[in-house]
Amino acid sequence: MSLDPEIAARLKRNADGLVPAVAQQHDTGEVLMMAWMNDEALHLTLTTGRATYWSRSRDELWVKGDTSGNVQHVKSVALDCDGDTILVKVDQVGAACHTGDHTCFDAGLIG
Amino acid sequence: MSLDPEIAARLKRNADGLVPAVAQQHDTGEVLMMAWMNDEALHLTLTTGRATYWSRSRDELWVKGDTSGNVQHVKSVALDCDGDTILVKVDQVGAACHTGDHTCFDAGLIG
Repeated sequence: MSLDPEIAARLKRNADGLVPAVAQQHDTGEVLMMAWMNDEALHLTLTTGRATYWSRSRDELWVKGDTSGNVQHVKSVALDCDGDTILVKVDQVGAACHTGDHTCFDAGLIG
Repeated sequence: MSLDPEIAARLKRNADGLVPAVAQQHDTGEVLMMAWMNDEALHLTLTTGRATYWSRSRDELWVKGDTSGNVQHVKSVALDCDGDTILVKVDQVGAACHTGDHTCFDAGLIG
């Protein structure tokens, strides 16, 4: 099975076939991280209940938490007005960030 | 004046010199939109108190709200763990989306 053609038609992908995806904790509203999805990752995110991305560094599908245990259970998925960003509301298990921080923005305040 | 060299050194830009920026309503936590910043846009966002992006369609700096009146007053700015995403917490005046929706994700639920 692959991504619903109606959804696929709305996506605006970059030159690498990817769309940025923002992961947000569904109840607190915290922005946890930003990663990238291709069509297959979005399809899996929509159908498995597990947030799934495309790892640009490893060049492979990345089911968030498969290695770390820090799974993201999907609560909802939305496209933005022009189909070039995905917002995934999740229930994050443990830390979202590979540094161990709860979100990838915790240590990065610049202003 | 230009972007603080210490911040500039932490940024990971794409091939076009841009970094994705997520705008979030500071008090409700709503994710409003995603847009792109170059170094100058980030510098202006940090120093003017007005969220400023790089418009890829118009190929120019875009001080959010200059045309629409739907200004974003900057509350905080953070980089993520690897410097390739910016999170801007703002106080959004009016609608964030050019469609008139409060956020760019309001009409886009797909799952």
